[in-house]
Amino acid sequence: MSKSDTEIAELSFDLLSNVRVVMVNTTLPGNIGSAARAMKTMGLSDLVLVDPKKPIDEEAIARSSGATDILESAVQVSTLEEAIEDCGLVIGTSARSRSIPWPLLNPRQCAERAVLTSKRQKVAILFGREDRGLTNEELAKCQAHVHIPTNPDYSSLNIASAIQVLCYELRMAIETQAQPESEFWGVEWDKDLASAQELDGFIDHLESIMVTTGFLDPENPRYVMTRLRRLFNRSLPDKVEINVLRGILSSISRKIDP
Amino acid sequence: MSKSDTEIAELSFDLLSNVRVVMVNTTLPGNIGSAARAMKTMGLSDLVLVDPKKPIDEEAIARSSGATDILESAVQVSTLEEAIEDCGLVIGTSARSRSIPWPLLNPRQCAERAVLTSKRQKVAILFGREDRGLTNEELAKCQAHVHIPTNPDYSSLNIASAIQVLCYELRMAIETQAQPESEFWGVEWDKDLASAQELDGFIDHLESIMVTTGFLDPENPRYVMTRLRRLFNRSLPDKVEINVLRGILSSISRKIDP
Repeated sequence: MSKSDTEIAELSFDLLSNVRVVMVNTTLPGNIGSAARAMKTMGLSDLVLVDPKKPIDEEAIARSSGATDILESAVQVSTLEEAIEDCGLVIGTSARSRSIPWPLLNPRQCAERAVLTSKRQKVAILFGREDRGLTNEELAKCQAHVHIPTNPDYSSLNIASAIQVLCYELRMAIETQAQPESEFWGVEWDKDLASAQELDGFIDHLESIMVTTGFLDPENPRYVMTRLRRLFNRSLPDKVEINVLRGILSSISRKIDP
Repeated sequence: MSKSDTEIAELSFDLLSNVRVVMVNTTLPGNIGSAARAMKTMGLSDLVLVDPKKPIDEEAIARSSGATDILESAVQVSTLEEAIEDCGLVIGTSARSRSIPWPLLNPRQCAERAVLTSKRQKVAILFGREDRGLTNEELAKCQAHVHIPTNPDYSSLNIASAIQVLCYELRMAIETQAQPESEFWGVEWDKDLASAQELDGFIDHLESIMVTTGFLDPENPRYVMTRLRRLFNRSLPDKVEINVLRGILSSISRKIDP
């Protein structure tokens, strides 16, 4: 991995501070609190509330679970135009079908586009009312729409959950961009891999025990040893693990053939 | 996109019904309700509750927002072993750093792996306690861990939000799999994966032999069993391989303790 966690954190901070979450005409303050929490866990901080039905209250603060700084710095405006006037890219969340087709992104494409634009300009992602989303007029103010895929039989996605998913994709877009394939197990390993010779030594020792116990007939070994080689090779044993396995075999050998 | 919505819906239904969400020792019933809603919006239905601190209540039902069928069919068990015994692949959600590194996936990789396996076998994704996640012992029962990237300064992701993100990635994995990656080992496997129960049976048998031979001091086991679990989990043993390993252990047991 070329970028350190710290570098990734700084990079995401820079870019994600340019992505604004705009909640339009929200009914429940609790959802605003959950949205603040969802944003902050992913590193976003710019929240704008367009004409919320109720002000931020105790329930909102409780649901924000410590992301109160996001609630405190949230800007409240009365029209959508004010919320997005300084933004170069505006994307509206939408159910799939519209009377007039509009450029439609999935959440991953939305995040890639937003992160690209955020390098130079502010980006807004709009979230509509809990019960009926954004109006056609509001959606027409967007360059593109984003649709979160859902179960066609039950598409009742909570608004804070929708914000969580899109903010997650924004963070993923930054963490995965230009990041080389991670190590084979997705994590930096703390021990060197066992050498081919060490592996052979283990397999030979195991085989001799299997013959001693009568499990393996040397005259008719079939594919047993091949299967075992394949199994242990697949897990890419490290040196400590092979030492443990050899230790176990030695303790068995001493018991079987003292 | 070449697949029609109907085809996608049917495909996702088939595969996602094989992916189980396991919530371990959950404190707040409201979170179970939100989890049910998150699951259902993405097309999942199999919820297992391991020893929840409180039963499903009014708050859970309110938060499920109509996904009451998921709550009604949720199975409650008292141990993690019961929750995963029929699963071929078990993935645990985890914060990044562990004393012993374990195969680590991001949510996208987790979803790809889970969807591939779900074509033939059940998959479980484990979610821990609200305040401290899964224990090391629970994480050691997993073939891999999944980490949702978060803001290093504020990683307080709500449990239902975590479930939402992973379920969203599962749905995305199905909707985007036009040309799926090959199976995990780059080849179509000829045998089913061993179940969690079969793996446990093998590890227990191995441990008892290690104690008999004196290799393992039950009073001071350190990390030996955890390392062995990790090793065998990494190779995703199939049923034939586990049978061979059990056969070897039985032949050793008969020799040691005739």
